[in-house]
Amino acid sequence: MKFPSARSYKVTAEEIKQFAERYDPQPFHLDEAAGESSFFKGLAASGWLTAAIVMRLRVESLHIAGGMIGAGVDEMRWMQPVRPNDSLRTEAEILSVRVSNARPQFGVVKSRTTVFNQRDEIVMRSVVNFLAPLRGKS
Amino acid sequence: MKFPSARSYKVTAEEIKQFAERYDPQPFHLDEAAGESSFFKGLAASGWLTAAIVMRLRVESLHIAGGMIGAGVDEMRWMQPVRPNDSLRTEAEILSVRVSNARPQFGVVKSRTTVFNQRDEIVMRSVVNFLAPLRGKS
Repeated sequence: MKFPSARSYKVTAEEIKQFAERYDPQPFHLDEAAGESSFFKGLAASGWLTAAIVMRLRVESLHIAGGMIGAGVDEMRWMQPVRPNDSLRTEAEILSVRVSNARPQFGVVKSRTTVFNQRDEIVMRSVVNFLAPLRGKS
Repeated sequence: MKFPSARSYKVTAEEIKQFAERYDPQPFHLDEAAGESSFFKGLAASGWLTAAIVMRLRVESLHIAGGMIGAGVDEMRWMQPVRPNDSLRTEAEILSVRVSNARPQFGVVKSRTTVFNQRDEIVMRSVVNFLAPLRGKS
């Protein structure tokens, strides 16, 4: 069963640069001209901005009582650059749910997310583990 | 060989809330009172903010000509909540460097990062792969 994101998220050049100034100040994330002469051949979003946007879409799209408490990432791959004006959408899939060993009042939800741009190219994939309160036990 | 971050990074309540409003709008990341009655027993930073701060420290601390181009994450674990006024520092370790199969003018650098707070508690661990241009080949 796949859960599509409730909407797509348009990434602007301004957001790419603002995020980079604060968290990933490398020339190809900050400036169009520097991007042109880099690996990316143009301005590209920090992969950590893409990961943050995916969390935003996840919070808007999956409604888990008590919230999604991140435990960790099993895998994350950046497959294609994210460019100004790209529209990102996600598909999430629950891979497994188990009771937490350390915290038996919580479940561990392992979920795979695939992130697409407006051309349906996969820009990122991830497998993330969340803790979710088990109903009636929190 | 371990590479300590060039500085520590102080996380404020304002930054925790600003990041959460934009990328992880869950009550325990947005509001002290909501945090108190949650899993976290207080306001806690989004794990994606911690990951972004770690990238900031990485960019300031490792100087790789041509930049660090993220390929992916092999593993990331959030071990302890990050709280307002925590000071984060990192230790990085290069696990391996190999020539990229797909892009022979690039190396793939696998690096482990351990993130500590001001009490030397480990708050996050990650293993991240970067592409770096090989000297004289870019």
